[in-house]
Amino acid sequence: MRKLSFLCSILLLTPALSFAGYHQDQFPQPYQAQLIQDFEKLLALPNDLTQPENQKQNAQEIIRLFKQRGIQAQLLLPENDHIPPVVFAEWKVPGATKTLLFYAHYDGVTPNPEKWTVTQPYHPVLLSHSIENGGKPVTAEQQYNPDWRLYARSAADDKAGVMAILGAISALKATSTLPAVNLKFIIEGEEETGSDYLEQVLKANHDLVKSDDWIIIDGGVHASGRKALIFGARGDMYMDLTVYGAKHPLHSGEYSSFAPNPAMRLAKLISSMQDDKGHVLIKGFYAGVEPLGKQELAAIAETPNVDRQLKAQLGFAREETTGKTLAEDNNQPSLIIRGINSGAVGNAAVNLIPSTASASIEMRLVKGNDWQKMADNLMQHIRQQGYVVLDHDPTDTERARYPFIAKITMGTGSYNAERIPVDSPFAKWVIKAVKSASKQPVVIQPTDGGSLPLVAIRNATGAQSMSIGFVNYDNDQHAENENVRLGNFFDGIDTILAIMKR
Amino acid sequence: MRKLSFLCSILLLTPALSFAGYHQDQFPQPYQAQLIQDFEKLLALPNDLTQPENQKQNAQEIIRLFKQRGIQAQLLLPENDHIPPVVFAEWKVPGATKTLLFYAHYDGVTPNPEKWTVTQPYHPVLLSHSIENGGKPVTAEQQYNPDWRLYARSAADDKAGVMAILGAISALKATSTLPAVNLKFIIEGEEETGSDYLEQVLKANHDLVKSDDWIIIDGGVHASGRKALIFGARGDMYMDLTVYGAKHPLHSGEYSSFAPNPAMRLAKLISSMQDDKGHVLIKGFYAGVEPLGKQELAAIAETPNVDRQLKAQLGFAREETTGKTLAEDNNQPSLIIRGINSGAVGNAAVNLIPSTASASIEMRLVKGNDWQKMADNLMQHIRQQGYVVLDHDPTDTERARYPFIAKITMGTGSYNAERIPVDSPFAKWVIKAVKSASKQPVVIQPTDGGSLPLVAIRNATGAQSMSIGFVNYDNDQHAENENVRLGNFFDGIDTILAIMKR
Repeated sequence: MRKLSFLCSILLLTPALSFAGYHQDQFPQPYQAQLIQDFEKLLALPNDLTQPENQKQNAQEIIRLFKQRGIQAQLLLPENDHIPPVVFAEWKVPGATKTLLFYAHYDGVTPNPEKWTVTQPYHPVLLSHSIENGGKPVTAEQQYNPDWRLYARSAADDKAGVMAILGAISALKATSTLPAVNLKFIIEGEEETGSDYLEQVLKANHDLVKSDDWIIIDGGVHASGRKALIFGARGDMYMDLTVYGAKHPLHSGEYSSFAPNPAMRLAKLISSMQDDKGHVLIKGFYAGVEPLGKQELAAIAETPNVDRQLKAQLGFAREETTGKTLAEDNNQPSLIIRGINSGAVGNAAVNLIPSTASASIEMRLVKGNDWQKMADNLMQHIRQQGYVVLDHDPTDTERARYPFIAKITMGTGSYNAERIPVDSPFAKWVIKAVKSASKQPVVIQPTDGGSLPLVAIRNATGAQSMSIGFVNYDNDQHAENENVRLGNFFDGIDTILAIMKR
Repeated sequence: MRKLSFLCSILLLTPALSFAGYHQDQFPQPYQAQLIQDFEKLLALPNDLTQPENQKQNAQEIIRLFKQRGIQAQLLLPENDHIPPVVFAEWKVPGATKTLLFYAHYDGVTPNPEKWTVTQPYHPVLLSHSIENGGKPVTAEQQYNPDWRLYARSAADDKAGVMAILGAISALKATSTLPAVNLKFIIEGEEETGSDYLEQVLKANHDLVKSDDWIIIDGGVHASGRKALIFGARGDMYMDLTVYGAKHPLHSGEYSSFAPNPAMRLAKLISSMQDDKGHVLIKGFYAGVEPLGKQELAAIAETPNVDRQLKAQLGFAREETTGKTLAEDNNQPSLIIRGINSGAVGNAAVNLIPSTASASIEMRLVKGNDWQKMADNLMQHIRQQGYVVLDHDPTDTERARYPFIAKITMGTGSYNAERIPVDSPFAKWVIKAVKSASKQPVVIQPTDGGSLPLVAIRNATGAQSMSIGFVNYDNDQHAENENVRLGNFFDGIDTILAIMKR
C-alpha cells in the first residue's frame, strides 16, 4: 500500500513521467524535491511557542507558500498583537456547494536543544532511517526513499500537516484538477498553548471562515501503521502545584531531624493521587464520563492491539492502565505529572533541605469532563490530604497557622474534550473517501489521546470536526529528535487528495 | 555578655586604648578594621568546591595571613594535584608540653547566584542588620556594631572560623601574650565534599600534624544564642536515585493512559521511605544507634528548648521529628531528600511524560551507624517496593524484563559519625576554659546535627576532637545570603583566646 501510495503522489505531481519499472527505492528525485525543500525551509524557521515574534515569520512563509500555488491567503490577527496570527486561505470552486476547511498549526513545543543528538531543533536534516535504526545523513542528490526521515522541531507536529495540505494543492494544480468542494484553510500558531485566541479570531471572521466541516491534519498513524481517522480529541487541564518547607533552604545536617522537607511532602501528595496500576484516586475523577456508543465500541474492538509491540519499542515492561488496551483507555481521563522539581540532584546537589517543591500537573479529559470541575476535584483532594490550598506564596501568618500549605496556580489553555459520533453523516463521508484511497484497513478512533481545540471551533463556527493522523507514530513529537518519515508524509498527501477530490 | 565579650576583644587588640565611657554601639573603628578588611578580602576569593583552581588561591591567601602574623605556614599537598591543598601552620611555645590543633576549612558550597538578593556570593557586603530585619549597607567609616552582618558565601561556613583563629592570633601577638600550649593549625579545602583526601594528607605528614587534641572551629551557636560546645558530629551518606519510564519522553496525550510516569514512580518510592511525622520506614534505619550516656542525656535536658522559636523563625507550623526536641533528635540518624527532578515545571513544562526521575538522597548518621550498611538498607528497601536495583542505566533487555527499575549511584564523601564522652578529660578541660570566658551558660551538645570529618582525624592521627559553634545560628550557611553577625564573630575570637591561654 505504501508503494502504491507513493506512486500515486508522484503520478499526480508529475503527469508526464513514465513509471514503467518504478521501484520503491527509486523515486524520480526532482519531483518531490521542491516540496521537501519548502518543508525544510519552513522547519528552519524557529516556532517556539514562547517566542511569538519568531512565530510570525512562519505565518508569513506559509502565506508565501499558498500564494506560490495560486491560492489567496491572508493573516487573521488576534486583538492582542503579541499573539501569533492565524493564516487563512481559500480556494473557491465554481459550482461547488459544500465547503470543507482544512486545519493545521505551525507553532511547536519549546525544544531542549541539549538533548537533540543528530541535529539542532531548527536545522532540519534528512536521515536514511530513524536514529534508533542507525539512520545516516542522506543528500538531496540521492533518490527520496519512503524510509527516510526528516528531523527537526515540528517535522511531525505539525508542519508535516501544513506541508501535506500544501503538497495536495500542488498535486491538484499540477494536474489542473479542481477539488470537488470549496476549500478553506486555517493554519494557526497557538495550538500547543491551548489555542486561547482561536475562538476569538474565528468569531471575528465568522463569514470568512464559514464552512460545513473541518478536517484537522495533525497527528500520527495508529501504531499498527494504519491510517487513523479520529472523531474526537481529549480536553486538557493544567495547573502548577507548590508545597512548602521552611522559608529558606536549611542546612541538611542542622535541621533534618526537625524541619519538614517539601520534596518529601510533594512526593507524598502526588503519590496520593494515583495507585500503582495507574488508576487515579482523586474523588470524582471518572465521574461524568460520557459512555461510548455501540459504533465506537465496535471501532475500538476492531483496532489492532499494539500494546505489546509498543511496550517493547518504548522500553517498559508494564503498562499503567485503567482499562484493557491503550485504544480503550484513551476514552478515559488521565493524570499526568509533567515535571517535579525541588532542590537539586546529581552533581548540582548541595547539603540543603529545599524550601519549596513544585509539580506541573496536567489532565487529559474526555467527553463529559468539565476542566474546571476536574481542577476543583484535585484541589479538594489536596485539602483532604490535610493541606490548605492557597493561590499565593504563604505569608508568615499563614506559615504559622497551617502545617501543610499548597499553592495552586491554574495554567492557561485548559479546555474540554469534543467528539462526534462515528456514524454521523460527516464521519461516514470522510471514512468512505479515505478508505477509497487506502488498500489497508483504516483505524477508526472515537477519541485521540491528544488534544485539539475542537470545542473552540464548534463554539465559534458551529462546524463539526474530525482529524486524520498520517505521520509515523514514532515521531517523538514534543520531545527531542522529532521526525517525520517521508513515506508517511507523502501518504498523508494522498489521503488529503482523496478527500479534496471526493 | 556580648558587650563584655566585645570589650575583651578590643582590649586585647588595642591595649593602649582607654575604654572609659565605652558603649556597645560605639566601637573604636580602626582596631577591628584590619581584621574585617582581611576577612572581606578572603571572602572575595571564590571557593566553590567544584572549582579546585580557585580554591588554591584561598589557601595561598591564608598562608599569607598566617605569615603576616609571624606564624610559619605551609601547604600540604594531596597526591592528586587537582585536590585543594591543606594549609598547615604552627606556633611552638617554649616550655609547653601539650599541643592543641585548631581546624577550620576554606572551601564553600556551590552558590546559586540568582537567589542572592543583597549581593553576589563573592562580593562581601556589610549590612546594619539581617536582611529579614531590614538591614541596610553600612560603610567602613562607621563604627562597627555587633548587630552588623557580613554577607558572602562562607562568611559563616567556614571562613568565619578561619578568620576567628587568625583574629585570636592577632590578639595574642598584639599583647605579646604566649599561648599556654603549642598550637597547630589545619585549614583544609575539601570539607564540604567530605574531606576525602584529609586522612591521606594527615597520614603523609604524621609527625608534622601530631597533636594531643583537635578543636574544630566550624558551626553556629545554639539557637538560644548560647555558645555551643559539641563533642560529636553526625556522619554522612550520599546516593543518587533514578527511576525510569519509557526510553524517551512521550507525548502526554497519546501515552498518558498507558506509559509509566517516572515522576509518579519516584514520588511513590520516596514516600515509602518516611511516614508523615518524619519517622524513617527503611528497615534497620534506627538499629545499631549507640545509646547516649547519662552525662549526655543530662546535657540535652539542660539545653534550652528553642523548637517553638525556631519554627516561628524558619516559617513552618509543624516539625517532623522522631523524638521530643531538636536537641534530642540530632542524636538519631535522618533521611534527607536534597532534591528531586523530572521533566520540567512552571513555564518550562511541556506536554511530555518524562523518561526519568531522579532524587539526591542523603543520610545524616550517628554513632553506631555504618554508612555502607545504611546504604545497603536503603537499596534493600527499594527492592522491597518491587524494584530491581541497577548501577547503570537499564539496557533494552533489562527494560523488557523488569517492570520497576531503579539506578543507584553512590556519592563520594560518605563517612561515619564520631563522638567523645562529654565527661572525658579533654571535654572537661575545654568546657572549663570556655565557661571561664562566658558569663552566660554554654550549651553542651553530644552530637551536632551537621557532619565533620572526625573519623578521618582519629584514623590518621589518633587525636580526639570536639567543635565550637559561635556564628549566629541564622547564618543561612550552604544557602543564599549566607552571613555572619559581627558580634558573634568577635565573641568566637574570645572563646578561642580563652582556650589558647588556658
